[in-house]
Amino acid sequence: MTGAHVIDLGIGEPQPRLLPLDSFRQAAAHRLALPGNDYLQYAPEQGWGSLRGEIARFLTGWTPHPVEPDELLITAGASHGLDLVLSRCTRPGDTIVVEDPTYFFALEVFRDRGLRVLGVPIDGDGLDVDALDELLSTERPRLLYTVPVCNNPTGVTLSPGRRARLAGLAARHDLLIVADEVYHLLGDAGPAVPSLRAAAPDRVLSLGSFSKIFAPGLRLGWIHASRERLAHLLQDGELRSAGGASPVAGAVMESALALGLQDRFLKEIRELYAARRRHMVRLLAATLPPEVTFEPPDGGYYVWLRLPGHVDTAALLPAAAQAGVAYRPGSLCSWRGGHACCMRLCFVHYDEPDLTEGCERLAAFLRAHLRAL
Amino acid sequence: MTGAHVIDLGIGEPQPRLLPLDSFRQAAAHRLALPGNDYLQYAPEQGWGSLRGEIARFLTGWTPHPVEPDELLITAGASHGLDLVLSRCTRPGDTIVVEDPTYFFALEVFRDRGLRVLGVPIDGDGLDVDALDELLSTERPRLLYTVPVCNNPTGVTLSPGRRARLAGLAARHDLLIVADEVYHLLGDAGPAVPSLRAAAPDRVLSLGSFSKIFAPGLRLGWIHASRERLAHLLQDGELRSAGGASPVAGAVMESALALGLQDRFLKEIRELYAARRRHMVRLLAATLPPEVTFEPPDGGYYVWLRLPGHVDTAALLPAAAQAGVAYRPGSLCSWRGGHACCMRLCFVHYDEPDLTEGCERLAAFLRAHLRAL
Repeated sequence: MTGAHVIDLGIGEPQPRLLPLDSFRQAAAHRLALPGNDYLQYAPEQGWGSLRGEIARFLTGWTPHPVEPDELLITAGASHGLDLVLSRCTRPGDTIVVEDPTYFFALEVFRDRGLRVLGVPIDGDGLDVDALDELLSTERPRLLYTVPVCNNPTGVTLSPGRRARLAGLAARHDLLIVADEVYHLLGDAGPAVPSLRAAAPDRVLSLGSFSKIFAPGLRLGWIHASRERLAHLLQDGELRSAGGASPVAGAVMESALALGLQDRFLKEIRELYAARRRHMVRLLAATLPPEVTFEPPDGGYYVWLRLPGHVDTAALLPAAAQAGVAYRPGSLCSWRGGHACCMRLCFVHYDEPDLTEGCERLAAFLRAHLRAL
Repeated sequence: MTGAHVIDLGIGEPQPRLLPLDSFRQAAAHRLALPGNDYLQYAPEQGWGSLRGEIARFLTGWTPHPVEPDELLITAGASHGLDLVLSRCTRPGDTIVVEDPTYFFALEVFRDRGLRVLGVPIDGDGLDVDALDELLSTERPRLLYTVPVCNNPTGVTLSPGRRARLAGLAARHDLLIVADEVYHLLGDAGPAVPSLRAAAPDRVLSLGSFSKIFAPGLRLGWIHASRERLAHLLQDGELRSAGGASPVAGAVMESALALGLQDRFLKEIRELYAARRRHMVRLLAATLPPEVTFEPPDGGYYVWLRLPGHVDTAALLPAAAQAGVAYRPGSLCSWRGGHACCMRLCFVHYDEPDLTEGCERLAAFLRAHLRAL
C-alpha cells in the first residue's frame, strides 16, 4: 500500500489481515457441534451465565484481581455499554466530565443524550486529578467518563497515586466513574495494571470489549460493575425488550475463550502491537521536526502529537492527504474544540513498512509546513 | 409440559424447539467456508450492502412493493431500531402517540427517553384514526408509534381505508410514523398486506426483525425508510462509534437468505402458527365463559381477551398461576395503566397439547373466578 495511496494513520481499527478468522472458524465449528440452541433465543438481559463465566475466567487470568461472573453484564460492545449507562444513570441536561482530549465518538454519544460536557486536562500521568478536584468545588457532575489505561487518544495510563486520589474524590463527591477500558489488556505492563474498578469497586463501571482484542464484528463486550449497579442497568427498556446483547457472537466467543483461542491471540497481538509501537516511536523521534513533541504511549493503539500552538491540524489535513498521509485532528477529540495543534496517530492498523512510509510522509509534510509558516 | 408446571400463555417468544438450528448451522457452514473476513471488522453504519441486498430481495418476494437495499439500515433488532429512531428524532419532553394498548416494552423505551406518551384507542380495524385526528387538533406529537399489522397485543391489522386516512393525517400534521412491523410476514393474508410504508413512504419508518421469523438470538433487524430519513439516523453517535449492528449474525443470515433457508422456514412457521392460532381460537370460543370476549387475530403471535370491566387481571395473576396458567395483564400494555380487564395470550410458544391444557386451565379459572365475584 505504499505509493500514491493515502496512509491514514488516523484509523483506529484493527488491521483487516490480522483479524483472527482461523480462530473464529475454529470456535464457531466447536460451538455449532455442541448440542443446544440457546444462542438462537432471547438471552437473559445480563447475558448467558456460561459466557459471563468464561469472560470472568479470562479477565481473572489477565488482571491482578479476580472477576466474578455476577459482576459482568454482556453488551454489544463498549459503545452500547456507554449508552446503556447513560440511559440509566443520566438525564438530559446533566453535567458530565471527560478528559480533554477524549475519545471523539463518545462526545457524539453524550451529545445525543443531551448532556452538558466539561473537560479536565490529561498529562503524562493521566487525568489531572487536581483539576478535577477544583472543578468539583463548583460543579456537581453526574459522572466522569475516563479512559484510564492506554488512553484514547493520548496513550498514557493513570498513575497509581492519581488512581487512589481519584477514588477518594469520587467517594467524597458521590461521583460515578465510567472507565472505558477497551485498551486495558493492550498495555505494556498488561496484567500488572488493575482495572480502575479495583480502586473504587462501588463507583466504577468498567466498559470492556472484544473489539480491540479479538474482532470488532462480534459487537460483544461487557460492563464490569457491582451487582447493585448492574441491577439498576438491567431495568433499561431497550435491554428488556431485546434481551441480552449479541447471543450468536457470544456463543462463538464462549468457545473461543474456552478453547484458549482468545488468550493465544491476545498474546500474539500484544507482542505485535508493542513492536509496531516501538517502531513508530523510533521513527517519529528520528524524523519529526523538533518542535513536534509526544509522550511514548504505554500501550493501546495511539500516539498523540503536539505541534506548535499556532498550528491547526484540522485545517492542515487536506494538504496532508495530498502528501499521502492522514491523521485525526486534535480538535475532534476535545469537548471544546481545543487541542487544535495536536493529532492522533494509530500504530496498529498498518504493517511496519506502511507505518514507516506513513511516518516519513508525515514528518516530511510537517517539516515543509512548519518551515513555511 | 402438562401437569403442575405453569403454562405461561403470556410468553411472546418463539418456542425453543422450533428455532431453526439446522438452517442456522447450514448457513453458518456456508458463510464460514467463503473467503473473506469482513464480518469480523467494524461494519459500515448502514450495514453491509450485500446483506441489505439479500434482505431487500427477501422482502420484495414477500410483499407487494419492491424494497431497495439503499432504503434499509441494519439494526440489532426492532428494539434497537426503535431506540435509534428516538435518539435521532425526539428530545426528552416530546409528546408521542401510541395505540392503547400497545407493546409494553416499547413503553419502557419511551420512559427511558423521557418522552410524554399519549394513547389513542385501537379496535377491530386497527388504530382509531378519528381519535388520532381529534388528538391532533390539540396536540403536536413528534411521532406515532404503531403496530399496524397483526398488532401486539390485539392481533388486528389496520384496515385499508384507515391506512389511507392515517397517511393523510400524517402529511397534514407533519407526523412521523414508526411502524413496528415485526409480525408483518406472519399475517393470514401475508404477501397481500403492504408495509405501512407504502401508504406514506416519506413519513413512515418501518421496523423489521428476524426475531419473529427466524431467531431472536441473531439480534438482527432493519429500518426501512427513505434515504433522507436514514441519512439522519446514520448520524447517531453510538452507531458511528460501534459501526453497523451485528455483523457476525448478519453474515450468517446473509447466507440463510441466499440459500432460501429463511423463505423455507417462514413458510413452515406461517402454516404452523396459523394452525396453532386456529386451534387456540376454537378452544377459547368453546371454553371461555360468555362474558369473556375477543377478536380472532389476523396473524402474528397474540390474542387479546376482554373480561368484564370490573376485573383486574393483574391482581388475578397470582391466583391464575396457582391454577397452572399465566398471561400478560392488560394494564401492562397501556400507557395509562388502562385495559386492566384485558389480557394478552400468545399462541406460538407452545405445542397444541400444551395450548389445549393452558386454555382449559384458563377457562376453568375464569369460570370459577367470575362466578365468585
